[in-house]
Amino acid sequence: MDSEQFRKFGYEFVDWVADYFAEVGDYPVRSRVKPGEIKERLPAKAPQAGEPLETIFRDFKEIILPGMTHWQHPGWFAYFPANNSPESVLAELLTAGMGAQCMIWQTSPAATELEEVVMEWLRDMLGLPAGMAGVLQDTASTATLCAILTAREAASGFEANKKGVKQPLVVYASQEAHSSVDKAVKIAGYGKEYLRHIPVDENYALIPKKLEEAIVADKKAGLVPACVVSSLGTTSSAAFDPLEEIGQICRRHNIWLHVDAAFAGTAAILEEKRWMLQGAEYIDSFVFNPHKWMFTNFDCSAYFVRNPDLLVKTFEIHPEYLKTAADTQVKNYRDWGVQLGRRFRALKLWFVIRSYGVEGLQSMVREHLRLAQLFKSWVDEEARFEVMAPVNLSLVCFRFNDGRPEPELHNKNKELLEKINATGSVYLTHTTLKGKYVMRMAIGSRLTEEKHVRQAWELIQKMAKEI
Amino acid sequence: MDSEQFRKFGYEFVDWVADYFAEVGDYPVRSRVKPGEIKERLPAKAPQAGEPLETIFRDFKEIILPGMTHWQHPGWFAYFPANNSPESVLAELLTAGMGAQCMIWQTSPAATELEEVVMEWLRDMLGLPAGMAGVLQDTASTATLCAILTAREAASGFEANKKGVKQPLVVYASQEAHSSVDKAVKIAGYGKEYLRHIPVDENYALIPKKLEEAIVADKKAGLVPACVVSSLGTTSSAAFDPLEEIGQICRRHNIWLHVDAAFAGTAAILEEKRWMLQGAEYIDSFVFNPHKWMFTNFDCSAYFVRNPDLLVKTFEIHPEYLKTAADTQVKNYRDWGVQLGRRFRALKLWFVIRSYGVEGLQSMVREHLRLAQLFKSWVDEEARFEVMAPVNLSLVCFRFNDGRPEPELHNKNKELLEKINATGSVYLTHTTLKGKYVMRMAIGSRLTEEKHVRQAWELIQKMAKEI
Repeated sequence: MDSEQFRKFGYEFVDWVADYFAEVGDYPVRSRVKPGEIKERLPAKAPQAGEPLETIFRDFKEIILPGMTHWQHPGWFAYFPANNSPESVLAELLTAGMGAQCMIWQTSPAATELEEVVMEWLRDMLGLPAGMAGVLQDTASTATLCAILTAREAASGFEANKKGVKQPLVVYASQEAHSSVDKAVKIAGYGKEYLRHIPVDENYALIPKKLEEAIVADKKAGLVPACVVSSLGTTSSAAFDPLEEIGQICRRHNIWLHVDAAFAGTAAILEEKRWMLQGAEYIDSFVFNPHKWMFTNFDCSAYFVRNPDLLVKTFEIHPEYLKTAADTQVKNYRDWGVQLGRRFRALKLWFVIRSYGVEGLQSMVREHLRLAQLFKSWVDEEARFEVMAPVNLSLVCFRFNDGRPEPELHNKNKELLEKINATGSVYLTHTTLKGKYVMRMAIGSRLTEEKHVRQAWELIQKMAKEI
Repeated sequence: MDSEQFRKFGYEFVDWVADYFAEVGDYPVRSRVKPGEIKERLPAKAPQAGEPLETIFRDFKEIILPGMTHWQHPGWFAYFPANNSPESVLAELLTAGMGAQCMIWQTSPAATELEEVVMEWLRDMLGLPAGMAGVLQDTASTATLCAILTAREAASGFEANKKGVKQPLVVYASQEAHSSVDKAVKIAGYGKEYLRHIPVDENYALIPKKLEEAIVADKKAGLVPACVVSSLGTTSSAAFDPLEEIGQICRRHNIWLHVDAAFAGTAAILEEKRWMLQGAEYIDSFVFNPHKWMFTNFDCSAYFVRNPDLLVKTFEIHPEYLKTAADTQVKNYRDWGVQLGRRFRALKLWFVIRSYGVEGLQSMVREHLRLAQLFKSWVDEEARFEVMAPVNLSLVCFRFNDGRPEPELHNKNKELLEKINATGSVYLTHTTLKGKYVMRMAIGSRLTEEKHVRQAWELIQKMAKEI
């Protein structure tokens, strides 16, 4: 493809994305294809000869697009949002165009140093302790794995890296903690029998007393408590573990404190939500995802640590072929995580933070919080619905409840959710809270306005009449 | 930013990328900035108010760009290439625009099914066994970690996931294997004392006899051999371990065989290089990076397994909030690797394979192989230089040698490499082979033509006269 063709298709693709942003609300949010339907339409073998880009682009629109679930849809209320933004998409174009692999300082100094800078910006925007250092990871799963590995090394005096996990080490997280904790505990070789799921209170927050009891019992049994994962904004209900109390327990017992604030962390840019970081001085590591609620397209996960030396010591490798003259003077982020190869993620984050400004980001997050309270007030007013968890942020957990027995309610809510989603206008997902089937209304898409939330509620009410 | 602004900046950025492709050869390949120089030019705090995109784009060009090392430069001979291509960059624009997070089938069926299809294409293009199933990972580091974890579970009967690594498990790789093996062994909790670096022969290939001796000795000592990592194309010299012999040993001792073909794998699309996969029937898992030599921009790493059930069983998680009605009928790739969240990487790979066609990719790879042989012939002809390893693919390891003692040669070559790179016309990196400092001429950038290789060689000779 020559330069003129690239320009031609480039403009055409830019137009397509511009139209997509404008019209994404017209698609069914959740794809309606059946399993296997897309695959059936694709040839089993790669083409021998090259094909014109017109043909590939046509197939993209005709075959692929109907199989997409539209995460940027204003009716997106599923899981948590994974927002992009025009500014972030444009920056990603530059990143892809340069195609730099930013594993070490030397292979693109600007990528390393811009990452240092935007991570300091983020740290200060959230009000994390000034001494913390940051690195961009792909996902919170990876960042939490990094934390659990560093905790393993800290607890074993770096012996686990050498000899494996000889003495049983224990990780603690609430019953509501994200599945990535379970996954990381397995990967890191603790063994999932050494993951304690600590009970939660009526607000789905970890009970500190239960945590300390578990720690004491494990110590008595000769086990070594290594890591506590505290959730700020759980996946099911955006519950907040009491950070300060947990931090004091960790300090008392000399245990690594990792904080998973994957979704909720962004809200800490608001003064009025800063309470969530009360106790931040106890944090050893912290993750939140700008790719969720900070309008920076996936993937972009921000990981902060109090002591980067421990992180580096956990991961560092020194093959001859990666040594450079600058090594003693610079950060080589290859040693700050699992992967050697790294994309230039800081660029899109820099574009987003600068183009919105802190105030712009704050006002968007505030609006989502307002919409969630509004939705909650509607649910509260409607006799046949109930709110199922505190609405701390922009997630409302609720269910249909007309007074029938619990097992029937379970099925009715499941049926209702499927009917709602089948309309294609909105997409909500579910969870269970204390065994009850609950719908999750996760507000936070960039394009979601009050009218979309209102339409969603009207639709939910309408469908509830039909079940 | 409204739709018109997005179009305006979109066109402008497309033009910038088009110009960048055309002019990338005019930049110094390796950035000339000093440590800290970029950071100094960036404000310490995020802006409160949003800034115009013009300003950000101007800063990108004035501050960031001089700090970039240009991986797409035709004079890029460092490490291995990390190629992009116009087609891949355009596809990435669509991916970023849609902003779909493809963790499970339901969250974008087309992403999952297209991934299945392109992985089948790749498997057949390389001539891997028909039964193997594939998944896209970010990097070979992650894929190798997946392999070493699955091997851990297979060897322990899935007990390590439950109880940690109780009985010592052992991993084997050559002395020339990539550092990601060392990293994965630490992460997975084997302990690096249980990684055996098997000696290599005069071609830097693992010696099978030494491998089997080590296995037998470990078994005798009561240890459990769990995994052999065989390198096809090592990082230092693109050496090939003898796959078939290693495979037979693994079969004999019931050990997981992982193949790291991160760079070299792409060459298996050529009939004349298919010898590298002799013994492929023994492979349990295999990784190669389309983001290196297959013109698909970073990151995009292809991981194949013989038995996906073992992979899934190693990683699977079943939180309520991720359950969908389709789960029993579809692949949920979240359980095929470390991360939960996943980008839509298959799209760019699909664009690349279709637009080049298998023949187009073959001819580009063949040309790089030809250029490497040409470069090698020049080095062979020049008395003061010597080739230091077999040129199996497109990497030439060589050094200056005018007959002075070894310690002086080490320093002279180091000095020479620094002088060559300081010109900004080319970028080569180094390694050590049998303790000798060696320059690596890794040919394989999309824009590299014979004239660039010739200019590089002229420059190297010229600089050698000046040291």
